[in-house]
Formats: sequence, C-alpha cells, structure tokens
Amino acid sequence: MAKTQLADFNSNLSEWFNDVVLKAELADYAPVKGCMVIRPYGYSLWENIQKFMDVLIKKRGVENAYFPLLIPMSYFEKEKEHVEGFAPELAIVTIGGGKQLPEKLAVRPTSEMMMYDMYKKWFGSWRDLPVRLNQWCNIIRWEKRTYLFLRTSEFLWQEGHCAHLTHEESIDEVMWAIKMYQQTYNELMGIYGIIGAKSDSEKFAGGYKTYTFESLMPNGKSLQACTSHDLGQNFSKSIDWTVQDKEGKKAFPWQNSWGYSTRSIGGLIMAHGDENGLVLPPNIAPIQVVIVPIPNHQTALAKSQELFKELSEKYRVKLDDHEGETAGFKFNKWELKGVPLRLEIGDRDVAAGTIIISRRDTGEKITITLSNLTSTIDKLLTEIQTALFEKHKKFTLDHIFKADTYDEFKKIMETSRGFISAHWCEQKNCEAEIKTDTKATTRCLPIDAPEEEGVCVHCGQPSHHRWLFGLSY
Amino acid sequence: MAKTQLADFNSNLSEWFNDVVLKAELADYAPVKGCMVIRPYGYSLWENIQKFMDVLIKKRGVENAYFPLLIPMSYFEKEKEHVEGFAPELAIVTIGGGKQLPEKLAVRPTSEMMMYDMYKKWFGSWRDLPVRLNQWCNIIRWEKRTYLFLRTSEFLWQEGHCAHLTHEESIDEVMWAIKMYQQTYNELMGIYGIIGAKSDSEKFAGGYKTYTFESLMPNGKSLQACTSHDLGQNFSKSIDWTVQDKEGKKAFPWQNSWGYSTRSIGGLIMAHGDENGLVLPPNIAPIQVVIVPIPNHQTALAKSQELFKELSEKYRVKLDDHEGETAGFKFNKWELKGVPLRLEIGDRDVAAGTIIISRRDTGEKITITLSNLTSTIDKLLTEIQTALFEKHKKFTLDHIFKADTYDEFKKIMETSRGFISAHWCEQKNCEAEIKTDTKATTRCLPIDAPEEEGVCVHCGQPSHHRWLFGLSY
Repeated sequence: MAKTQLADFNSNLSEWFNDVVLKAELADYAPVKGCMVIRPYGYSLWENIQKFMDVLIKKRGVENAYFPLLIPMSYFEKEKEHVEGFAPELAIVTIGGGKQLPEKLAVRPTSEMMMYDMYKKWFGSWRDLPVRLNQWCNIIRWEKRTYLFLRTSEFLWQEGHCAHLTHEESIDEVMWAIKMYQQTYNELMGIYGIIGAKSDSEKFAGGYKTYTFESLMPNGKSLQACTSHDLGQNFSKSIDWTVQDKEGKKAFPWQNSWGYSTRSIGGLIMAHGDENGLVLPPNIAPIQVVIVPIPNHQTALAKSQELFKELSEKYRVKLDDHEGETAGFKFNKWELKGVPLRLEIGDRDVAAGTIIISRRDTGEKITITLSNLTSTIDKLLTEIQTALFEKHKKFTLDHIFKADTYDEFKKIMETSRGFISAHWCEQKNCEAEIKTDTKATTRCLPIDAPEEEGVCVHCGQPSHHRWLFGLSY
Repeated sequence: MAKTQLADFNSNLSEWFNDVVLKAELADYAPVKGCMVIRPYGYSLWENIQKFMDVLIKKRGVENAYFPLLIPMSYFEKEKEHVEGFAPELAIVTIGGGKQLPEKLAVRPTSEMMMYDMYKKWFGSWRDLPVRLNQWCNIIRWEKRTYLFLRTSEFLWQEGHCAHLTHEESIDEVMWAIKMYQQTYNELMGIYGIIGAKSDSEKFAGGYKTYTFESLMPNGKSLQACTSHDLGQNFSKSIDWTVQDKEGKKAFPWQNSWGYSTRSIGGLIMAHGDENGLVLPPNIAPIQVVIVPIPNHQTALAKSQELFKELSEKYRVKLDDHEGETAGFKFNKWELKGVPLRLEIGDRDVAAGTIIISRRDTGEKITITLSNLTSTIDKLLTEIQTALFEKHKKFTLDHIFKADTYDEFKKIMETSRGFISAHWCEQKNCEAEIKTDTKATTRCLPIDAPEEEGVCVHCGQPSHHRWLFGLSY
C-alpha cells in the first residue's frame, strides 16, 4: 500500500498524477478555467530547466529579448494556415483602458507574427543575418479541459526564432534545437525519447516541417513538450520580408522556430514516479538531499545543522527540523516530493559516527561513516541520475512494437502500451482512418529510421520507412 | 557636437532618451499602441537586474512561483479602492476559445487578488506563516502615450507577496524590500535616491502605506520604479482570509507586496547618459569591455582574439572584428551603447607591447603595458562603478532645495530642477492645490526626515516634517 494517499500508479496514472501534483505542491488549479498556479516546488523545476537550457541557447549565439504579449488580430491573418491553426485557441482582448478597442488583440499563442514583423523592420541586409532571438514568456492557448502542466490554457515556455540566408543553415539550426532539447531531457530530466519529423497533418500551422522529441509515459502515451520547426520561407513571404543578398538581390530569409514548455514537467512527473509519489533525478531536483534529524534527539539536531551548513555549499539541501511531526511523517513527505537522498540522523548515529542514507529511487538504505559522507553523496547522486535515465530508456525500448499488418497494429493498441513501429504510405486519409479505428496517431518519423521497403499497414501502398504511432497526451 | 546623431542631452532630454533607446537598440515601439519590444541589449540589462535581485530575494526566504495572467473581474471588485484604482488601466479578455466568455477576465495589472485567493485556499494556520512568494512576470496597465521603458502598456517586473501573523513582522519586510531595491539601485545601477513614504493620495490602491525609492533624473524629474506596500489587513479582510493563531483564534494575516519593474531601466539610461549616448555602470553593463582591433591590422586582430579569450573568463567582453566599418565608426557605436571600457589595438601597439584603454564615463585614454591589463581593468571597472554612483549622489544632493514660503516654492519650480524639501500639513486639498499651481507632487516623506516643527508651505497649518516635492515621470 502506498504510504501517502495517492491513486494507484499502475492502474490509474492520471488520477495518481493529479494527486501527486496537488499533494507534492507542484501546482494547483487557478480560479480561471483551464489555468494553473505553479507553486514554488514546481516552479523551481522550471527554474532549473531555464538555467540548464539558457546556457546552451546562449552558447549557440542566440540572444534573449522580449516581445509584446498582445498581437493585433490582423497579424495572424497574414499567414493563412497559421491563423486557421491558432484561431480556435485564442484569448482575445477587446477592451483596453476602459474603451472598446478598434482592433481586437490576441493574447500571444506563439510569437512568429509579432517577432517577424519587427525582424522585417530591423533587418534588411544579408549582413544582419543570421538573426537569433529567444524569449522566455507566458503563452495562452485556450483549453476546455485542464490537466495540470500537460494541458492548461496558460503555460510558460521559451521560443527561439532565427532567420538565415540559406535553407541549409536554417535546417542545421532546426536540428541543433531539437538535439539541445534532447540533451536537456536526457541529462537534466533523465528522460529518454525519440527525435523525429512530424507528419504533415501534425506539423506546426504555417510551417514547413516540424521535428519533435517524443517521450513515452508509463501508461504508453506519448508526450510532446518541445518542437523545432523549419518554417521554410513561408513566413518571410507572407509578410514580404526580404533582405539584400551579397549580389544586391532581394532574398526571402529562411526561418525556424523552436519551443520547450512547462508541459515537460508533466512528463518528468510521470516518467519516474512510483506508488509513493515523485522520483526526481538529482540534476533537476529542487532539493537533492533532505536531512531529517529524529525528533527530540538533541545531539542529532545539532549535528544535522552542522551537516546542513556543510552540504549546502555543494548541494541543494533542506534541513527538516519542523516541529510537531514524526520522523515517519517526514519520511513520507519527502518521498512524496521525490527528493533523491534522505539522511536520517538519531542520537545513537551521532554517537557511533554513522549516518543512514536512503535512496528515493530504489528505497535502499545504507549506513555509512560520517567521514565518507560527501564522497558517498557524490557517488549516489550520479548513480541515481544514470539509473533513472537507463530505466526510462529501457522502458521505452521495451515498449516499441513492430506491426506489419493492420490486425497486429490493432491488437497491439488493444493489449499493449507503447509506440508502434509500422509502415505508412504518408497519405492523410490513411492517417485519419488509423486514428478513427485505433486512436493511434503518427508520433514521428524517427530521424535515424533506416530506409526499409514495405507497404502501408493500413492501405498496402508502398512505404519506405517505419513511422512511430501511439496515443498522445 | 555629439558624435552620434542624438538630440541634445541638456536641452532636450526626452528626445535624447528616445534617440538613445532606439539607436543603442535597447527597445523599439511595438505595433500595438503603448507596447514596446525589449531588444537583446536592453533585455540583458533586465537579466542582470534579475540575477542580482533574485539572489537577495531568495536569501530572505522568499520563493519564486507563477500565478495566472488572467484574473476574473469579480476578484478585483472585492476590494473597493483596489478596483477603483486599477479599472481605468485594465486590458480585458472577453473572448476565449472562439466564444464570448461568461465572465470577463482582466489581464493582470498586479496580482494581489489572484495570489491572495490562493493563499486563502492553501494557508489556514499560524504554522503556515510567514508566507513569502515572488513572481517574475509581465504586467499590463493601459497607457495612452508611450514612453519607452518609462510608460508602456506592458512591462516586466517582479512582485513579492508576503503574509505574517503580526503587523510588526510585515512592516519589517516592507522595509527590507525597499532597502533591497535601494541596494540594487546603488550597487548594481550606480543610482542614488531617497527612500520615503508616499502620501495617502499617492499610495497603492487598496494598501495601507506605500514606501518608494525616488531617484532624480538630469532634468529634475523624479522617477519611481519600485514600491513596497504595507497592505495592513485590508486584503485579508476583503477576501475573508483568516488563519488560526496559536491560541486557536481566527486572525487576519498582515500582508505586504513589493515590485520593481523595467521602468528602472529608463532611469538607468537617463541618470548616467551624456551627449554621446549611454554610460553604463560596469556591474550592470551587458558588455563591460569591448576590444576594437584597428581594421586591417593583422597582428592586432590575432592579439585581440587572444585577449578576448583570456578576458572572457573574467568579464563580459565583446570583440568587434566586424568587417567594413572604420575604427572611428566602431568607437562611436560602443560609446553610444555605453560600454565602460574600450581596448584599442593596432599593429604598432602589439609590437610595443602596449594597449590603449578608453574610459566611457570620462573619455580618458590610458596607454598601458599589456602585462598590466587585468589589474588595470579590475581597477578601472571598480573606479567607474563608484564614480558614477558618487556623481549621481552629488547631483541629487545638489538639487534638493529647501523652501519655507510658497513664493520660494514656486520660484524654485520655475527656475531650478530637483526636489523641494518643504513643510506640508498632510492635507489632500493642500497637496492638490500645490500640484495645480506648480505641477509639483509629493514625492515622499524621507524615512530619515528629522522631526522639525514648521508650518505648511501652502496653508500655514502646523507641520512636523519636511516632505520632498517634485515633478514626476
């Protein structure tokens, strides 16, 4: 039985998820339908993502900036697919400063149109390229049903928007971005996943080609929390933005955009969680080590304070000297919150010069001598980080199923949870019929998918690659 | 004559300001009236403020979180003064997801109501106090006239919102916050200013008492870019939020809120600027040292690249090896952008083992031997930071004028630029009449204003302190 009152992880992941998000105080429902409040413990996960990623973004030469929240509706209408894609999700400001506005303003659902309008104003020569800007901001896309982190009307993200003189350079950046996201997922969040191209019907509205990083959740659903778009020249043409190239001729810049959102935190929660709550990889954990002195043990309390001071220089540490709670209560609390390592200290431990270290991911308890503390913590944090990634990688690879006939495909969808690797003719109607029959959508064409002659699992037409199908969040 | 095409700093500060903001690429006008785009060079000023302040905020035990952008209109209406104060400035969402919304939503002009509603839900015991949360976010307050950074419909800020069991603890935090802002102004931005209490007519809508940090601009106007509010129990009472105190009785928490915005960047630009553009204090400068190799000097270019690598480990450095621009053009460009130190390197310098360092604040040029480079840069950056602060402090103190009669007061307003220190009876009608007659408003009652018996400069009624009056931005 779970130590904390959570829905069952294995049989009811979605209720477990809500329980954990609320009880571990990661987030809460806001009074406005579809919106959420990100509480400090959840927000510090986002801060750690920002810190990790901002370094990588700046290293690429991308600079941070800030563009307005409010976008004139006429801007959207310049790119036909773009406005059709986003119109149903817009929140629209019609009143400002006490007056009905002459033009309605959309609260940004993404900033292509706003940013590129300024690019057109600022950059008119090949010398100005490449343009590389990013912003960390809030986004509104109206949702009817709220699912904390995963599906909310407001979320936080970064959006990078670059422009180049050639398609080749732009594609290079599209791939750089999706791999930068992969690195963040793998190294920071301990999450494995597959990079691939989206099908035409799943790509970004108004874009040319979209790459995604799809990660598999324990219930077999696939989560997409970041995408990198090759926009081609679609946007520069729609707003008539040209630069003078080296020969003095007008050229439409090649553009790309890429974003990574707080949705990813939903994936982090599910990918590693267990029946006792969160399990956080040390690299992203807001608290890496919690020290719990056994209540009313005075020597232990003094020792804990000493250790807290010492360890704080190297790790993110919390000393739980809160009064009025039992040791067991505290253990459960920090397990629920997924803290990677717990140090338990009683008076007898201090007398013996030992300490008990408990691992959140395995539940293992180790007694070590105090003099080995730092080296043990170092070793364990590294081990946990690696172990969680390897576990998620193994889970993912174990749940990729090949289907060569439609019957196999349907059977897998009914009995298993995971990705289905299958041939598909790349026709929209086949994709739609597969979805109607099985609920499975195309997740991506993995970038490393080998050439393989086959026939579409649904219609039998020729196919050259296996796509990944699955249920999506 | 100015080296760059800027309006005259001394006679036309406001046009100079717009010129500098646009030409130094700090910000630009957005298509939506009243909104601005913060360009990378301007945004990195904000990033440096965030880095500096976030450490101080966290050290206090305040945690970052994120609350929704959209706030139901009914929330505002719970506190009468609050809604009256903010209603004329609201941007209002009436359409969401393609449908007219049943309740209008305000785009946040401040988050008291949204946050305290959640506080009420989350915190019900004295054990939960103090509550200390902060968020970095965007804010909309509708403006008719745009003034980049200083007056824009959207701006960025942080807002801290804390709650305590006693008024005393809350006041302690109100003062901590305004002093933390003072520290940021003084140490990071090199700006001197006066901390004081706002008059009742100038305080926060719905609050109990407001403290401000007022800094004097070169044209004698006073800028307020941060405030710290003692909210008393006004908000907890208006939403009926109580906690059980230690005796088990219901108590309304004492609250405070405090915010610091991108307006402050407007002050930074004006406080130190000169006829050639920006002058940035080294601690906040996005680029502290720019290296300009003389064009077409090959040895100098190689040496510059070597120095860039070396200095980048310690400072924020830019190597300007851009082709097709003369040395003079580059010098002007980096002067306009206010970079504290410029290194000029030609082939002859390399041969002689020397380098020319140019100070932005004084224009002074020094030739030093290369082996002394780092120690000289260290020394100069410290000197410049101190010199700018001392200069602004002296300017401010030199422009505080005592007025003991209304004639004196009016004469100072006509002939001088600065703060007027004068007795005032603290009656609203006197304050209003002074404003009508002279345009001067009460800026603040300095916290260190000595008790001094006198009579109101306007009505002759008894007064116990001198207030500061002035023109405001």
